[in-house]
Amino acid sequence: MSARTLLAVDWGTSSLRGAWLDPQGQVIEERAFARGILTVSPGGFAAVFDTCFGDWLRDKNTLCLIAGMAGSKQGWQEAPYCACPAGFDEVASHLAWVQAGRMAIVPGLCCENAGVPDVMRGEETQVLGALQLLDIQDALLVLPGTHSKWVTVQAGKIRSFSTFMTGEFYALLRQHSILARTLPQNDGDLDQDAFDQGVGLALQGGSLLQTAFSVRTLSLFERMTGPALASYLSGLVIGEETRSQSVAPGTRVVLIGSDALTQRYERALMQRKVSVQRVGAEAAWQGLWALAQTIQAD
Amino acid sequence: MSARTLLAVDWGTSSLRGAWLDPQGQVIEERAFARGILTVSPGGFAAVFDTCFGDWLRDKNTLCLIAGMAGSKQGWQEAPYCACPAGFDEVASHLAWVQAGRMAIVPGLCCENAGVPDVMRGEETQVLGALQLLDIQDALLVLPGTHSKWVTVQAGKIRSFSTFMTGEFYALLRQHSILARTLPQNDGDLDQDAFDQGVGLALQGGSLLQTAFSVRTLSLFERMTGPALASYLSGLVIGEETRSQSVAPGTRVVLIGSDALTQRYERALMQRKVSVQRVGAEAAWQGLWALAQTIQAD
Repeated sequence: MSARTLLAVDWGTSSLRGAWLDPQGQVIEERAFARGILTVSPGGFAAVFDTCFGDWLRDKNTLCLIAGMAGSKQGWQEAPYCACPAGFDEVASHLAWVQAGRMAIVPGLCCENAGVPDVMRGEETQVLGALQLLDIQDALLVLPGTHSKWVTVQAGKIRSFSTFMTGEFYALLRQHSILARTLPQNDGDLDQDAFDQGVGLALQGGSLLQTAFSVRTLSLFERMTGPALASYLSGLVIGEETRSQSVAPGTRVVLIGSDALTQRYERALMQRKVSVQRVGAEAAWQGLWALAQTIQAD
Repeated sequence: MSARTLLAVDWGTSSLRGAWLDPQGQVIEERAFARGILTVSPGGFAAVFDTCFGDWLRDKNTLCLIAGMAGSKQGWQEAPYCACPAGFDEVASHLAWVQAGRMAIVPGLCCENAGVPDVMRGEETQVLGALQLLDIQDALLVLPGTHSKWVTVQAGKIRSFSTFMTGEFYALLRQHSILARTLPQNDGDLDQDAFDQGVGLALQGGSLLQTAFSVRTLSLFERMTGPALASYLSGLVIGEETRSQSVAPGTRVVLIGSDALTQRYERALMQRKVSVQRVGAEAAWQGLWALAQTIQAD
């Protein structure tokens, strides 16, 4: 096992982020680009990658690991899904090598819930990284986003997970539904009371199909206005997501993601008497660095 | 009480329908126009109405009753909501007269559920008409659509109701979400097996936020394709709506609406062991005719 630097990359649908890590796993430099896979033409991935990170790869001793949608059918090179349960070993043995021993794409994971499949790409790396950062082997982790993931980890392996299209539903209702007419142009700052009220209604058990209509009626009777309504709708969708998972009171949940979003989830989970730990975007780099150690130890 | 003919009008968001009824309530003629209130400029309602139905109003003995969104703030003349419980008498005493004794707009209804208001405009008329057609005083009625209504009637009065944005959610997911990429351009005929599978998953209790993602994953693993996926998504949203209401097995539900839509709801409710009776668009004419009798009896 030689001491190598690592180029850790998270190439998602809408963004491309990379970090250069020293052999001890410390970040030397980070970069982010609005070059998600949707912006790249088929056959154009190598060129985009070279433009963004080529200088970091001049050191022939650098290993490059890429997580995220770059491994999907629409990405750079397909890395077929790895079935759960999966930890570092399973992910390492399913890498799709772009250049043997030099550059690999991390596979996403798949599992089966209630007879239908579920998938993730990129989140597995963040989850495994968060376990390392927190030095834990068992956890329930939540990764809020366009497609939120709830991930159950036991003995260091991802056993199962569920996807919620929460962020996407919010955007659809916000931009394209009848509610768009009553909501303000911009979300503005979070109105905590309105958010809590939305979470509270969602936790009572009604479907979002029904609760969402209250954005319109509260506005119609002028019982809530503009900016508060956007926070209220956010509370309705996030509240519905948190309600849908059985989390025993007192359970610790690990939230991974940006402060703005994880703070909302923490607030929503508080109404369920669930305490949280928050981990930021560094989880992805930690996950890829630990994966690199697994590969190099083989 | 003089024997008068009735011009019964249902002026909704996207369509304008009218029927001319003889003093016994028989439909003499029906007309429909793509002139929903969204197509009419403020101040332009009288002119549109005259173009569509002016000839039927030449008989000075004709009464005209207009139900639907024409009574909203964005409509012809606002008819403030009438609070539940409400039957023919309450609706009749809240009419907004456009021409005294000659032409009136029927008010919508409002009620309160779990601390938030709910509203309807037009459906109250169909519900009251269906009660007359079926000669019943107590029922649970469902009016599927863009914004479906579940209406509880006791002793001939609408006690409460709930709105579900089911049709709108379907359209949003169908046209604007990530699922649009895997769904075919047109829905095609209903694939009953796929629809039933969607209903079945929804009835297991997971949120639509989660179940909707299975449209993508079933397609990803080629376990369901094109036209079947659209029927499956329809089953997911309608199934979620039917799950959200407590309906004791053996309850009779009255479905009001077009055959295409009420057949889907009947199929979904079958999985809950609920039997249905179906009533078509004639419910609106019957409701307005019965309302006319109430007014003329005063």
